[in-house]
Amino acid sequence: MSEPWFLTPCPSPSSAHSKAALERQSALTKPQGSLGILEDLAVRLAGLQQTDRPSADRVPVILFAGDHGVTAQGVSAYPSAVTVEMLRNFANGGAAICVLARTLDLPLQVVDAGTLADREIAGVHTDKPRRGTSDFSYEPAMSSEEGAFALAAGQRAVARVRDGKPDLIILGEMGIGNTTSAAAIAAALLGVTPPEIVGAGTGVDADGIARKAAVIAEALALHGLGNPDIAALDVLACVGGLEIAALTGAIIAAAQARIPVLIDGFIVTAAALAATRLNPSCREWLLFSHRSREQGHRLLLDALDAEPILDLRLRLGEGSGAATALPVLRLACALHAQMATFAEAQVSGKS
Amino acid sequence: MSEPWFLTPCPSPSSAHSKAALERQSALTKPQGSLGILEDLAVRLAGLQQTDRPSADRVPVILFAGDHGVTAQGVSAYPSAVTVEMLRNFANGGAAICVLARTLDLPLQVVDAGTLADREIAGVHTDKPRRGTSDFSYEPAMSSEEGAFALAAGQRAVARVRDGKPDLIILGEMGIGNTTSAAAIAAALLGVTPPEIVGAGTGVDADGIARKAAVIAEALALHGLGNPDIAALDVLACVGGLEIAALTGAIIAAAQARIPVLIDGFIVTAAALAATRLNPSCREWLLFSHRSREQGHRLLLDALDAEPILDLRLRLGEGSGAATALPVLRLACALHAQMATFAEAQVSGKS
Repeated sequence: MSEPWFLTPCPSPSSAHSKAALERQSALTKPQGSLGILEDLAVRLAGLQQTDRPSADRVPVILFAGDHGVTAQGVSAYPSAVTVEMLRNFANGGAAICVLARTLDLPLQVVDAGTLADREIAGVHTDKPRRGTSDFSYEPAMSSEEGAFALAAGQRAVARVRDGKPDLIILGEMGIGNTTSAAAIAAALLGVTPPEIVGAGTGVDADGIARKAAVIAEALALHGLGNPDIAALDVLACVGGLEIAALTGAIIAAAQARIPVLIDGFIVTAAALAATRLNPSCREWLLFSHRSREQGHRLLLDALDAEPILDLRLRLGEGSGAATALPVLRLACALHAQMATFAEAQVSGKS
Repeated sequence: MSEPWFLTPCPSPSSAHSKAALERQSALTKPQGSLGILEDLAVRLAGLQQTDRPSADRVPVILFAGDHGVTAQGVSAYPSAVTVEMLRNFANGGAAICVLARTLDLPLQVVDAGTLADREIAGVHTDKPRRGTSDFSYEPAMSSEEGAFALAAGQRAVARVRDGKPDLIILGEMGIGNTTSAAAIAAALLGVTPPEIVGAGTGVDADGIARKAAVIAEALALHGLGNPDIAALDVLACVGGLEIAALTGAIIAAAQARIPVLIDGFIVTAAALAATRLNPSCREWLLFSHRSREQGHRLLLDALDAEPILDLRLRLGEGSGAATALPVLRLACALHAQMATFAEAQVSGKS
């Protein structure tokens, strides 16, 4: 049997372009380093895009939705029905990510990667192996075949935006119950206990957080996920979500295609951790948009050695944090391209 | 003698509009509070702008430049000549703030509030009582009349943008040596020692930082500014900069005219502290854009009870941090105005 697509190594960024960008930054009319993260972002994007003039203009958003059997355990503040109701809200332009995408001129692709919807929803790509996952407190969330299907759904979604030659992509998600699945994945992959990683999600109270942590602890024991050396694929199948597996596949597919990914909050970062475990070479292609208020996000970011751009106490998902950070990337590119050098502006250097 | 203009109280924001905005936020299709600071910004702007639909579209930038006699003490990494050279760079569109203003469609007004320039520079408003300040390590930086002139120059600059009905304004600065002046002002007003507040500015090394701190400590003793109850006007005259006094006047004038001010980094925040000491009612009109890398900025932000939007390791000035934060405000306004409510989108509420 041939090696699965998602293990194919991703290309390396161009260190020559990053080096040239760093030199240009030090020639621009400002004290060296004084634009902080804005300089770092321009230098990184130059290397990723193999160009002297990085840009963040063409940025499609791909949003994957899925439902979670584990919601039967009362782990969410909202009923499962909200996932499909929100799919319609995405299609109708009323959700936060729709407003952000319109304002920033980002094409939005919504993918039903595994919701409970029993028919196609207008404006939504349906690409799912099943309707919702099984309740992972009793059985694996999905079979390994279903997991492979969901990873490939992520790859297919990236393929649909490739022809537009994106400068980078934003990935988002929606799925009632998916902070529970993401926390279970994170706990398994990081080898931390559920209380260290579980947060309020859409807004459960302290009892709800304790219930989530207990459900996850039992599931990790049931599925034998107490050892961080367990393969990420098994973790995704046992406690994953279909939208989280699709995110994982999309991250790897984008990196393989030299498309940088601006990572969103807790859920997408959990998928990013799974992606780097499956295929470590994808890490170089990831930019991190924000630190969310979901408490486990900090542990995930630390594990990925990530310095996020924003910290705005967001905890919505949908790709909303990544979209909110995009203007910072755009400004970093504009500064890099358009500022005068000391020589051009005839400004004196250091004393 | 009548009371000076800058002591006239500023109006209060509309608590009715903030309350209505808060209610709208809780009806939008997202878990309550999940948009974090984006929600807070929309609610605050609604109260400041007395509207149901706050906006951050029309945002003039006013940049004040000044020179500092204290540069004779070797407190900066760059020669004083850079201030005027940068004025030309601002006029020619090559500086960081020019790129940001163009990209974000912000009109930029540059004011020579006290540089060493001996003639008018095309594209720059000249409005100064003198060329540069005196070296405050020997004598007061300016007379109280010159300080009053500079405060009024700030008021005049705001008057020039008022007819455009700005949604808010951004203030910036340029002046070799002005982190030394700002640190002296901050140390005097906060009652902290210079080592607690002095940073690298444009990029002096550890010896340079120690020299700055020693110069400030001697100046505070010379001018009798060891007591935090000293009037802010006296502090500005003794160790201020002409551009910092102009910023102080502009902040108060904007607040008096119901124009919110998006505060930039260390220098503008020092001016904001001076402004709130002169006229505490201006505080409500201030939004804080970012936490800079200049180490004293944190103390100033704490003293003003400010939660900045960004933390990007910036230390450039020019209003660049405020301009970089503006898209976040714009997105906050777009989300507030355009997201669907739970009722409109027929999405279920909490279980």
